[in-house]
Amino acid sequence: MESYKIVLVGAGRVATQLGKALVTAGYPVLQVYSRTEASAMALADNLAERSGFPVEGTTSLVDIRKDADLYIVALKDSALQELVPALVQGRSQGLFVHTAGSIPMDIWKGLTPRYGVFYPMQTFSKWRSVDFETVPFFLEADSAADLQCLRTVAEHLGSKVYEVSSEQRKYLHIAAVFACNFANHMYALSAELLAKHGLPFETMLALVDETALKVHELSPVEAQTGPAVRYDQNVIQRHLEMLSDEPLMQELYEKVSQSIHCLDGRNHEEKLD
Amino acid sequence: MESYKIVLVGAGRVATQLGKALVTAGYPVLQVYSRTEASAMALADNLAERSGFPVEGTTSLVDIRKDADLYIVALKDSALQELVPALVQGRSQGLFVHTAGSIPMDIWKGLTPRYGVFYPMQTFSKWRSVDFETVPFFLEADSAADLQCLRTVAEHLGSKVYEVSSEQRKYLHIAAVFACNFANHMYALSAELLAKHGLPFETMLALVDETALKVHELSPVEAQTGPAVRYDQNVIQRHLEMLSDEPLMQELYEKVSQSIHCLDGRNHEEKLD
Repeated sequence: MESYKIVLVGAGRVATQLGKALVTAGYPVLQVYSRTEASAMALADNLAERSGFPVEGTTSLVDIRKDADLYIVALKDSALQELVPALVQGRSQGLFVHTAGSIPMDIWKGLTPRYGVFYPMQTFSKWRSVDFETVPFFLEADSAADLQCLRTVAEHLGSKVYEVSSEQRKYLHIAAVFACNFANHMYALSAELLAKHGLPFETMLALVDETALKVHELSPVEAQTGPAVRYDQNVIQRHLEMLSDEPLMQELYEKVSQSIHCLDGRNHEEKLD
Repeated sequence: MESYKIVLVGAGRVATQLGKALVTAGYPVLQVYSRTEASAMALADNLAERSGFPVEGTTSLVDIRKDADLYIVALKDSALQELVPALVQGRSQGLFVHTAGSIPMDIWKGLTPRYGVFYPMQTFSKWRSVDFETVPFFLEADSAADLQCLRTVAEHLGSKVYEVSSEQRKYLHIAAVFACNFANHMYALSAELLAKHGLPFETMLALVDETALKVHELSPVEAQTGPAVRYDQNVIQRHLEMLSDEPLMQELYEKVSQSIHCLDGRNHEEKLD
């Protein structure tokens, strides 16, 4: 299993972080494809240095090796759809997987016999290296045998592994938008308000950390504090008045407070049922 | 300075955590007042055990000592307003401070000569002990000398200390509602959506942590990722359709996305100015 020959299609953030983790875990990555020569070469050289084995870089689709066991395709959503037919051509013995959370597994259907999804969910940055031991993988495959292969690879990277359907994965993506992108926007609004009143955002960091830590031990609904969950209308009203020169922030304050109150009520009802 | 005699008025979460930190830092807490005898005694005993010195518990306002240097009043907002006149009576040599972020310093004005605000900003839970080294203190006092006293105490607890006006403190509170309460609600909506589709919230924890960690190094606006900041209308539209059976969540998705796009635009304009 460990001798699985891998080709990486793509040399962006996900391909780079995954490639490094794979060679560190002992998997032979033989080749990197990218449309941009510099990117293909940079990642191939980096992986060769880490593994101590040669890694080829290529910008030509027809030159992608035909003897790999696993093709991990980490391209932008638009490029993925476009390149799939050319990628699978003449490589029908290999297992093809894409890493994009929002693309259904069916893009491979009818084009190649063995396919799946290998989706590591994290916000990948260029400047921070990712600790895969904390990254959950969401897997899907057309056959039980290939699902087991993907599970073995993901588990070797040291991550939590979940099997999910394409339908579940769509909602996973929205859930991540709320928990990550939208939570970050709440920080951004906080920073905006503080800056306006001469205070630095660093004043919030202890709170931000504690809020994130708490939901490791309690459900977010149980962890909820603040005027909205107490339904303290005096405080809410005063805050809304103080936000009168920021209409969009004021509207969000009101809507989010309503939503907190509503979700809390819904959970209490469920407890009574 | 270290021999400052302290009386704690209140025995709730803030009084308990502060009291423990004060005796650990070597400050003599002489007495604990609470309206509830069990609470006064429990905290007094706990502090006596930690400090190795007797700590008195009382439920009688007139029995509060008259010889303390510092009275730290950590009561509920409503009780605070009500008890202030009786508290200061006959204790005009002491420095009175309250710990409530949302109450202006002026509640003491005209009633006693030395007063201020000693506000540790954190979400205090009964079941988690607070590491004061990470808790910022926001201070205000009527005189420079008393401000210096409060600064010394806060710095001995190992915290970051900020001097802020009552006006700034009001906005600090709203900023904390966004960064803490509202960010937590984004986790809660995420958990709700996941549960509906058979997935556990633990799948989000790596993302939640990374999102919180990122804003230690980047401003929240710089750290923003996701479909809204890219203004990827295809993804946004698809997500809104998928939320059609959750009208309140759908509305919030739309408003928060608009707000992300708007705040990003505002920051780009500022860069161009």
